Amino acid sequence: MTRVKLTLEYDGTSFNGWQFQPDRPTIQGTVEGALATVLREEVRLHAAGRTDAGVHARGQVAAFDAHELPPLHALCPGINALAGPDIAAIDAEIVPGDFCPRRSARSRCYAYRIMNRRAASPLWKRQAWHIVQALDVDAMNAAAALLVGEHDFSSFRDAACDAKHPVRRVLRSEIVRDGDLLVYSVEATAFLRHMVRTIVGTLVIVGSRRLSVEGFRDLLLAHDRTRAGRTAPARGLCLEAVRY
Amino acid sequence: MTRVKLTLEYDGTSFNGWQFQPDRPTIQGTVEGALATVLREEVRLHAAGRTDAGVHARGQVAAFDAHELPPLHALCPGINALAGPDIAAIDAEIVPGDFCPRRSARSRCYAYRIMNRRAASPLWKRQAWHIVQALDVDAMNAAAALLVGEHDFSSFRDAACDAKHPVRRVLRSEIVRDGDLLVYSVEATAFLRHMVRTIVGTLVIVGSRRLSVEGFRDLLLAHDRTRAGRTAPARGLCLEAVRY
Repeated sequence: MTRVKLTLEYDGTSFNGWQFQPDRPTIQGTVEGALATVLREEVRLHAAGRTDAGVHARGQVAAFDAHELPPLHALCPGINALAGPDIAAIDAEIVPGDFCPRRSARSRCYAYRIMNRRAASPLWKRQAWHIVQALDVDAMNAAAALLVGEHDFSSFRDAACDAKHPVRRVLRSEIVRDGDLLVYSVEATAFLRHMVRTIVGTLVIVGSRRLSVEGFRDLLLAHDRTRAGRTAPARGLCLEAVRY
Repeated sequence: MTRVKLTLEYDGTSFNGWQFQPDRPTIQGTVEGALATVLREEVRLHAAGRTDAGVHARGQVAAFDAHELPPLHALCPGINALAGPDIAAIDAEIVPGDFCPRRSARSRCYAYRIMNRRAASPLWKRQAWHIVQALDVDAMNAAAALLVGEHDFSSFRDAACDAKHPVRRVLRSEIVRDGDLLVYSVEATAFLRHMVRTIVGTLVIVGSRRLSVEGFRDLLLAHDRTRAGRTAPARGLCLEAVRY
């Protein structure tokens, strides 16, 4: 058996997320279907992070074991000929048998994009959250910086999260404005379910001056999900990279 | 009569270009249709540049004359409620009656995006030209820089171009690499028909080392369209801004 690490980019708009579902289009189901044809055997893909419905990826990592492989340079073109225009395998490499996309990962990098102006954006409509109210990016950055380090992130955890413990280490957390587009970049060893989208939903409350930076700090320390903002829409979120 | 200047963003993928056609969706037709409802009168929109089918805009400028206007702050939301998600009016202002979007413009800024890697990009598929062969950006930039200044651009002019003379002044012409994405930015007083796309088609030949920078210079000076490269696909082109 040979273990292969795939790097995938996808537009998640038309998919019900990463995880296989028998009757609906998913990233896992589509790529496994393409691999079954390319490899002439059924394989199971394991991802670094199971992205939710509507979430995009520029650098998702997934691995599978195969009994026999085509030449490595032909693997991505083979997948891409079958997976449709919304999914692309952009890199493939052979890895040791103990490589696990999820457990071997040192960190994940997500970006969350917000289009902050009155009119919605035709060019960003699939990849950004549209917010009309002018946001105070300096206040949002002051709050975002409080997340760096090791914290109990229970306040930003979905009720359905099945992680064993709520402590995660955030390595980077900052917002950059590029014209009307705000890009929140966050890197952590790992994330709880809906953690980035709940952080963004709460940072937006800070940006609209309905929550102070001190209030945001209290909320982080409260370890109480009921006090955070609403979960930001999936379309703004993109798994940019997984580091090993 | 009051003259209004509109700034428009659009995803041109689903449109047959700017110019009105009776039986097909166009930007002009869609916005004029929305304006007819908002203003309760038929108006004619005049654009700074009539973009081709599939070309996008982040800052197209168009103007119309109306007998009666709603409050100016209500105009863009009114248009946007009717024009669909692929077109947005992002700004409206009242201008003097001698303002002409085309003739008053001092310059136009276009961007052309190329995704330069093996796999096509799901996230850029509507807004970039996919080129597999690795491109030499330094050589492309050396060629692009030769276009700055006043030149006879007959070599980069479509046969159907109806401009009176082929001389244009280019103010900026450069390529920036951002990961696998190349962005060619070009600003000129005005452009000939298909000029940007023909320039890009030819720069790509330089980038793939099938034409030298000196060869590109000869081609510019030859004033002969038959020697330039093929017209690059519409989807990579975006009218970024019009300056007045």
